[in-house]
Amino acid sequence: MASYTKDELAKMHPRDFRDLVRKGEWTESVQDICVGYALANLVIVPRDVALDFLIFCLRNPRPFPLIDVTEPGDPEPKLAAPGADLRTDLPQYRVWKHGELVDEPYDITGYWRDDLVGFLIGCSISVDPFLKAANIQYRFPGGHLTNLQTHPVGPFKGPMICSCRIFKNSYEAIKSILVSARYPLAHGTPVHIGNPALIGVTDITRFEELPSGTDTTKEVIRPGEIATFTPAGASGSSIAKETKLPLMITHVPFRMFVTDVLLEEQTFVSF
Amino acid sequence: MASYTKDELAKMHPRDFRDLVRKGEWTESVQDICVGYALANLVIVPRDVALDFLIFCLRNPRPFPLIDVTEPGDPEPKLAAPGADLRTDLPQYRVWKHGELVDEPYDITGYWRDDLVGFLIGCSISVDPFLKAANIQYRFPGGHLTNLQTHPVGPFKGPMICSCRIFKNSYEAIKSILVSARYPLAHGTPVHIGNPALIGVTDITRFEELPSGTDTTKEVIRPGEIATFTPAGASGSSIAKETKLPLMITHVPFRMFVTDVLLEEQTFVSF
Repeated sequence: MASYTKDELAKMHPRDFRDLVRKGEWTESVQDICVGYALANLVIVPRDVALDFLIFCLRNPRPFPLIDVTEPGDPEPKLAAPGADLRTDLPQYRVWKHGELVDEPYDITGYWRDDLVGFLIGCSISVDPFLKAANIQYRFPGGHLTNLQTHPVGPFKGPMICSCRIFKNSYEAIKSILVSARYPLAHGTPVHIGNPALIGVTDITRFEELPSGTDTTKEVIRPGEIATFTPAGASGSSIAKETKLPLMITHVPFRMFVTDVLLEEQTFVSF
Repeated sequence: MASYTKDELAKMHPRDFRDLVRKGEWTESVQDICVGYALANLVIVPRDVALDFLIFCLRNPRPFPLIDVTEPGDPEPKLAAPGADLRTDLPQYRVWKHGELVDEPYDITGYWRDDLVGFLIGCSISVDPFLKAANIQYRFPGGHLTNLQTHPVGPFKGPMICSCRIFKNSYEAIKSILVSARYPLAHGTPVHIGNPALIGVTDITRFEELPSGTDTTKEVIRPGEIATFTPAGASGSSIAKETKLPLMITHVPFRMFVTDVLLEEQTFVSF
């Protein structure tokens, strides 16, 4: 693994960071890396269902806000990161066959085909630096599988995975709603606040998506604290499981693609 | 009482409505009257503590967002409602002596003095038409006394009364936060969401401030519902009780002053 200080990683340009990833020198979480740039979740599907998936994203903008779509067979996201290669520039991938996770490679060149279409989907983790800049007090343990269903389109269906943030008190959570509303490309506001059981999260310590090495047993909601739940692009995994396509590729949680799109500039990038 | 349809009252200009009030033809709640115009809570104090109260408002902008202040002895709020008279143009008043409520007259001409200063303070009820326009599903039973303390200034101190809104689900509450944030002169966002006991509201059916005739026993929080609490200008009453001035005048809950200030225009009215 490449050795950089936290500060160097935070200030690194996405092009330079993607170079590291492409050379196999970074295979970990991208939290707090290239701060200010939009992180992106990845979904790759074959061309025959790509139109369905595109409509699925437009119909489910909270879990699937679109940042870029590649042309069939072309791994370059021309709008969000010219010169990048979706086959090599994410730290780790997930390969799904008929809804089963069959591989977690660091490179998908071997799986690439001329008919594959890549979708870059906004990521709520991009917002954390802005929450911290507003001095909002919270913990962000990870993502939970919920019972909130997406609107199905073609073969695509399944429940949402939501990012869970646990706030020191409810006023901090209210402030986070205002800050996150400014970034719709990063999933915008939470869709739920308060009792996790109301959206099917019966055990708050059981996460669907976590950075490696997290001690989840500590992540309970203490008296006075309150949790918010924001639809996550990690929902690509829950959709892959339910949709059961012959081939679908996503990424490992917290190992997203880093785009060249500044989150503050997002309103000018109208896709 | 004057007889008008709900629609006529909603569309009435504040000048015409204040005329009705002045003639004693309206002594009830001003909810849903002159829709779009900022309602205002009233606090009147003697000149010798008026500077303290003005600083108190500036230091506590969530419960006390200032819309206008009169000059000593002059009952006309020149900025918010030229030509109006604070002694006659509110449906009903409260007169406090040494922290005790001693009278609830419909007119305070008899109490008026040359040294009295009137403060018009924004009212969160002004926001309800905008919440309804956004199709947000909720009930607004009234105001609760909380344990949230104001920052004391001079003799002024005491807890906040907060408007309680109960939402069908937490996503409706999240939407209400975004809408209410646009209207800081009407108290802006809630300061608390979720468990009422955390801000000292142990019995949700016990209201401090209610429109007359409300059946409070129905106002429980049902499973799946969530409550928000927004600091209310009705806090004038809780401050009057604690501050114990020889004379302080406020208004009866829900019987506010109606200003000429359009809430959508508030940003241009920089006081």
